[in-house]
Amino acid sequence: MLLFFFFGKNASAQMATEHPKSFQLDDTHYEFPYVIPSEESIKENMERLFNYFYSSTSFRIINEKTGEVITDFKTVDPDAVIDKGIASFNLWDYTLGVAYTAMFVVGRQLNDQRFLDYPIKNFDFIFEHLPYFREKAQKYGVKRDGFHPIINMHALDDCGSIGAALIQAYKIKQAPEYRAMIDTIANFITNKQFRLSDGTLGRQRPQEVSLWSDDFYMCVPFLARMGQLTDDNKYYEDAVRQVIQLSDRLFVWEKKLYDHGWNQCAGEYDPHFYWSRANGWAMMAIVTLLDALPDKYPGRNEVLKIYRTHVQGVAEMQGGNGLWHNLLDRFDTYPETSGTAMFVYSIAKGVNEGWIDHTYASVAQAGWNGLTMYITRDGKIENMCKSTTFSGDICYYYHRPASFEHTHGHGAALLAGSEMIRLLKNPKLEVKKKARSYHYRIKDEE
Amino acid sequence: MLLFFFFGKNASAQMATEHPKSFQLDDTHYEFPYVIPSEESIKENMERLFNYFYSSTSFRIINEKTGEVITDFKTVDPDAVIDKGIASFNLWDYTLGVAYTAMFVVGRQLNDQRFLDYPIKNFDFIFEHLPYFREKAQKYGVKRDGFHPIINMHALDDCGSIGAALIQAYKIKQAPEYRAMIDTIANFITNKQFRLSDGTLGRQRPQEVSLWSDDFYMCVPFLARMGQLTDDNKYYEDAVRQVIQLSDRLFVWEKKLYDHGWNQCAGEYDPHFYWSRANGWAMMAIVTLLDALPDKYPGRNEVLKIYRTHVQGVAEMQGGNGLWHNLLDRFDTYPETSGTAMFVYSIAKGVNEGWIDHTYASVAQAGWNGLTMYITRDGKIENMCKSTTFSGDICYYYHRPASFEHTHGHGAALLAGSEMIRLLKNPKLEVKKKARSYHYRIKDEE
Amino acid sequence: MLLFFFFGKNASAQMATEHPKSFQLDDTHYEFPYVIPSEESIKENMERLFNYFYSSTSFRIINEKTGEVITDFKTVDPDAVIDKGIASFNLWDYTLGVAYTAMFVVGRQLNDQRFLDYPIKNFDFIFEHLPYFREKAQKYGVKRDGFHPIINMHALDDCGSIGAALIQAYKIKQAPEYRAMIDTIANFITNKQFRLSDGTLGRQRPQEVSLWSDDFYMCVPFLARMGQLTDDNKYYEDAVRQVIQLSDRLFVWEKKLYDHGWNQCAGEYDPHFYWSRANGWAMMAIVTLLDALPDKYPGRNEVLKIYRTHVQGVAEMQGGNGLWHNLLDRFDTYPETSGTAMFVYSIAKGVNEGWIDHTYASVAQAGWNGLTMYITRDGKIENMCKSTTFSGDICYYYHRPASFEHTHGHGAALLAGSEMIRLLKNPKLEVKKKARSYHYRIKDEE
Repeated sequence: MLLFFFFGKNASAQMATEHPKSFQLDDTHYEFPYVIPSEESIKENMERLFNYFYSSTSFRIINEKTGEVITDFKTVDPDAVIDKGIASFNLWDYTLGVAYTAMFVVGRQLNDQRFLDYPIKNFDFIFEHLPYFREKAQKYGVKRDGFHPIINMHALDDCGSIGAALIQAYKIKQAPEYRAMIDTIANFITNKQFRLSDGTLGRQRPQEVSLWSDDFYMCVPFLARMGQLTDDNKYYEDAVRQVIQLSDRLFVWEKKLYDHGWNQCAGEYDPHFYWSRANGWAMMAIVTLLDALPDKYPGRNEVLKIYRTHVQGVAEMQGGNGLWHNLLDRFDTYPETSGTAMFVYSIAKGVNEGWIDHTYASVAQAGWNGLTMYITRDGKIENMCKSTTFSGDICYYYHRPASFEHTHGHGAALLAGSEMIRLLKNPKLEVKKKARSYHYRIKDEE
Repeated sequence: MLLFFFFGKNASAQMATEHPKSFQLDDTHYEFPYVIPSEESIKENMERLFNYFYSSTSFRIINEKTGEVITDFKTVDPDAVIDKGIASFNLWDYTLGVAYTAMFVVGRQLNDQRFLDYPIKNFDFIFEHLPYFREKAQKYGVKRDGFHPIINMHALDDCGSIGAALIQAYKIKQAPEYRAMIDTIANFITNKQFRLSDGTLGRQRPQEVSLWSDDFYMCVPFLARMGQLTDDNKYYEDAVRQVIQLSDRLFVWEKKLYDHGWNQCAGEYDPHFYWSRANGWAMMAIVTLLDALPDKYPGRNEVLKIYRTHVQGVAEMQGGNGLWHNLLDRFDTYPETSGTAMFVYSIAKGVNEGWIDHTYASVAQAGWNGLTMYITRDGKIENMCKSTTFSGDICYYYHRPASFEHTHGHGAALLAGSEMIRLLKNPKLEVKKKARSYHYRIKDEE
Repeated sequence: MLLFFFFGKNASAQMATEHPKSFQLDDTHYEFPYVIPSEESIKENMERLFNYFYSSTSFRIINEKTGEVITDFKTVDPDAVIDKGIASFNLWDYTLGVAYTAMFVVGRQLNDQRFLDYPIKNFDFIFEHLPYFREKAQKYGVKRDGFHPIINMHALDDCGSIGAALIQAYKIKQAPEYRAMIDTIANFITNKQFRLSDGTLGRQRPQEVSLWSDDFYMCVPFLARMGQLTDDNKYYEDAVRQVIQLSDRLFVWEKKLYDHGWNQCAGEYDPHFYWSRANGWAMMAIVTLLDALPDKYPGRNEVLKIYRTHVQGVAEMQGGNGLWHNLLDRFDTYPETSGTAMFVYSIAKGVNEGWIDHTYASVAQAGWNGLTMYITRDGKIENMCKSTTFSGDICYYYHRPASFEHTHGHGAALLAGSEMIRLLKNPKLEVKKKARSYHYRIKDEE
């Protein structure tokens, strides 16, 4: 009697159909290309990812019921919503926060104005229509029309990630409505969002007092960027505090991984479930902080220690095909792409910045190569775990469906490509292939 | 070349054929019903489990060779045995000790006299025929006739679990022969069973000095119930001591799980194999002790700490389909039902009693739902590991056959159902479904 | 959608085709014979393994390009190489170092001169032709002709393992050229090989300063044997130092396993990959040291502690079919035979010598039985991982092809057979089969 590990109907572990399924290199068979990727191939994948956004965004307001495009904004249509297309394009959304941040980085790196223009166009669309939707909310109440996270800001998901991108946009275009919104968000995070008595940012779900590893990214990048924008140390201080205090409850040192969440009611007996994307959020947030934080800022070394240990733990959990599993230590869960993209970015970035040892470059390289197998011709990413709550049982995580129309991994994948290009061009490093393996080495050593 | 994980011919990982194999709930596919079970469905499963016993027990003495029913008890038939049916019905057996205990609990909970009557009828059958079998043993020697564990009591397996049930029976029916047997067992455990020099109850197999995690259940529930029956603290004291001292050698804190066994000859270098049912025996025994032990009894907090840590470790090891694997940390072993039933009971009970955090309720719920997929229409439980010795190599555990005619998990499954009903009716708790996940919360919080 | 764990085309997990794939013993199904092996069956396997060498070695020098046999050694042929056959027969090679060592042991044990003669014949062949190849190297430069590791000795791989075998050969035949080469190797290891500042033997690949667990075997057995040969304590001292200092960086106490390698540049953040054969090299080296080291030698207890902990960790990682996986803690990598052979030898030897508890005998027994399923009629061993470098990413290890023409596991498999025979005949032990499991016990206990 045979039993197969079963990943669920939706959580198919299929690579994009246009990719070959088998690679023979020398005497070895791989299910992904275990090679040094060319700059061209990386750029091609980045182009695909960008195009998925570019070609999917209509920049339109529609009537949700009829689907008709609204062009007359004089009288408020109670059913007006953003036309978000097949995913969440054009919304005020934490996944787009990462995507826009990535586009600013990539636009500058590739000197490609399209990447810089797209997020600005999105933000302008939002701010142009915001008064209309505020009026709508006053008349008809707050609805899930795409503007609700602004009009009824009440969670870190509503503002932290997209706010961090808005700060980047503000560097390009000093629009007063950008700045006003940035300050609104800063005020929300600093003064309104639920915190533990020690100041740690938390949520009141699923339990009365809960911490989520996702929230590393929902607050730290904004706070770090805000520190840069304002030169006000209180933001750096809060960012460092969040990393250290969230890690106090969520980082499991024996596993070198982050627990998805922590319920105060369960305290030290809260069970640990190592959901991949939560680990990705944490690692990306810390990388963003390290990037922004002045070199000798108090607590920086503690943050570095957590980051290095986390990278070590994550590298040890990588799957055979370069991807990380949906639960990092459960190899019978499907290879998941959003967490993978976040790790590839955060590890390659750490090597390029010199925060972690250069030998980690081959982990990022294998991860990138694996990830590309799941990027479709039209820029979708397969095997990407859908929105996932913080669950009390591990069975839930096993069954989260994978979808390829949403955008949880696109920003990280773009950033990953960006850092992979930097890695290939890193003047301090060279890569040698020996015995079928890739060894990144410091150049002046030989 | 594909290789499948292979669970062995006997250790088939088949769900009961009458159950559907696939459940589509919202956007998610499950191989078991990931839902809040209805009270009716729980009761239906409990009814099936009880009926397996009720309909399989003939209450007859037969000639082992001819199969003929013996009705004349004047002259001793040397081949007389209990007609145990297809499993071990009506025997003096540790698995029946759990089943009878469960029936007393369930009978009271559901106000169903059948559940209360059945174990009493079994005990009375035993005591009615005991003189006959004693005479047979004197004449022809002790044989494996069903009465041998009484007549030749020489191991905890012979008396602890069934004795704990007998104490419960004695509360219902104050038969002097019950009481005499209870005292015999108390004397055996206290004065005759092999112990280490520090008083820890052990076995002389497989090595000269061995400890088994199974023995938590083979002694602690009896001692705890005996404390309640006699108000003599020495029993509580011994029960607490067993939990703490067995755990000293068998609980692996880094894994938060119990090793199946410990050989003194190997000492600190004894390898750890985390067999599921052994962990189940330990957890059920501790739950029984916590239930019986006065609130401020010395050592209670230490027992609670072990229990809470164990629950945490077990929750972290749950399989994707709600069941635990035959080796808890080896996800290529088959999902096993007896350990699962014990965990579901022990965790749900802990939540209901307030010994562990209420967030563990969803672990129990998923476990119960998974378990029901293996309960057949006629009340058998599939994927239940057969009797298993304490082995020196892990390969043995991989190959223990699963059978569905024995009774190792029935008592625990009945108790699990009982606690699941209590959970659904728990006045302090409410359960919310959010993002496809179930969150048990304290009611007055909102 | 089903996903199968995929072991790669080359890394097929196929048992030798002549073996049955399924064994029914009592009520249990196994994919390997879970039995007490007979002495005859062990000897038959050892005979096969030896014959693979015996029948594959031509003892010829050939022209590499034409394949023609060279018989005239007056003028140097620039293309002369050893005819190494289908594997690396007759070479000066670390895998043959283990094989020859094993043959000396087995020859004495079985009183079979063929086993003793074969390595001597190989060594004599090398030394007979060495002057010719030295001349060739002077004229045409050092080529990969089979003599290059002697002529251009520059790594532990070139001398440690084969040198340890040469010391054994020298006990049988006191040839001055043997002794001269032994001294050359001793000088190389002691004075020339790269070391860390604390004296730990290292490599300058893949990074400037790296340690490899393979190097336990590439130095410790030679040093230990050299101590025995010369009675000069400095060799014992160095051997003990290497075990302790390599373990300081490479042994992961929480996992009780050896990391494959350590890069100084990554320091404490070097990720851990538990490659099976590297663990095998370490354990075999330590066993060889314990065998050679005087009883009360300083540091012996520390070495014993490491060894016992390592055995415990390895026993806990054994696969269900008796073999260990290519990555010990990744059960989705293929069952690998060379590491398995090394563990079976090192564990059975430890039991026979009394260094570890006798209960470990059943681990060795299951391992041996599993291993035999991969030994072909002509003495090849299937599922043996090819030469493997120390990689920075785990994906590499997942994909190392298995081949059955090389010789990385043959020496260890012969030694494993030898210790299995000693185990069966161990006068202190008896083995009992109880509940389908095998329990080795001290004889005088009962």
